[in-house]
Amino acid sequence: MKIVRLPMRLEDCPVKTTADVISGKWKTLVLYYLKDGPIRFGQLKRLTQGASHKVLTEQLRELETDGIITRIETPGKTLKVEYSLSEHGQTLAPILSLMAKWGAEFRNRKAVAATEMDELSAASDKISSKIYELKQKR
Amino acid sequence: MKIVRLPMRLEDCPVKTTADVISGKWKTLVLYYLKDGPIRFGQLKRLTQGASHKVLTEQLRELETDGIITRIETPGKTLKVEYSLSEHGQTLAPILSLMAKWGAEFRNRKAVAATEMDELSAASDKISSKIYELKQKR
Repeated sequence: MKIVRLPMRLEDCPVKTTADVISGKWKTLVLYYLKDGPIRFGQLKRLTQGASHKVLTEQLRELETDGIITRIETPGKTLKVEYSLSEHGQTLAPILSLMAKWGAEFRNRKAVAATEMDELSAASDKISSKIYELKQKR
Repeated sequence: MKIVRLPMRLEDCPVKTTADVISGKWKTLVLYYLKDGPIRFGQLKRLTQGASHKVLTEQLRELETDGIITRIETPGKTLKVEYSLSEHGQTLAPILSLMAKWGAEFRNRKAVAATEMDELSAASDKISSKIYELKQKR
């Protein structure tokens, strides 16, 4: 069967929809941590080194608006604010896990390729200096 | 067992690595189409309405450099240029399919929520006008 493909506006692409929901500046990292369970705001701030209080709060608010995460306040001596994947956000967990696995393998693959390149260029240097040596002896 | 979470630099997040590979301007749409099989350049250009020749070519080149897609030239009366997911790119296919499914459901969910909002505000309007009517009668 021949697949008939119809043009699609970029904003209608469902892969892009998902990418947009999870790809904000700090969102991938936040979701990477939250996929394993709830985290307190302070801890999340420590885990996402480099994110300012303001930006992290914005990113969390966007994820909350999209219905991906839930903010739970527990009153007490000090107010406890905790974030977790919402019930709907849980449906993202398998995608996040696959992405984490794929990304780790991709980085590994790149590192191996870089090492091979280094070895090849070291071997090439060796051959060059050998040729030079032989030329000097003639 | 308590999960011990260590801080991670944003650039080390494996979810971000994957998101970066697939999230370029036109890449999600290109990959959305390519996950179902090879496509000729001209067809890809038609499918990604709005992408300029230059930008589409750049995006394809980046995916090629990352080893995700393969460019195959077949000489003939007119040169045939076809793109497909590489063997490594095929490992992305399950993620792309899940993302497409999730994205479609997310859009649907948003549309349902918007309809419910419309219905609620229509109901609220009705009640307001009923109250107004009753006040007039007093």
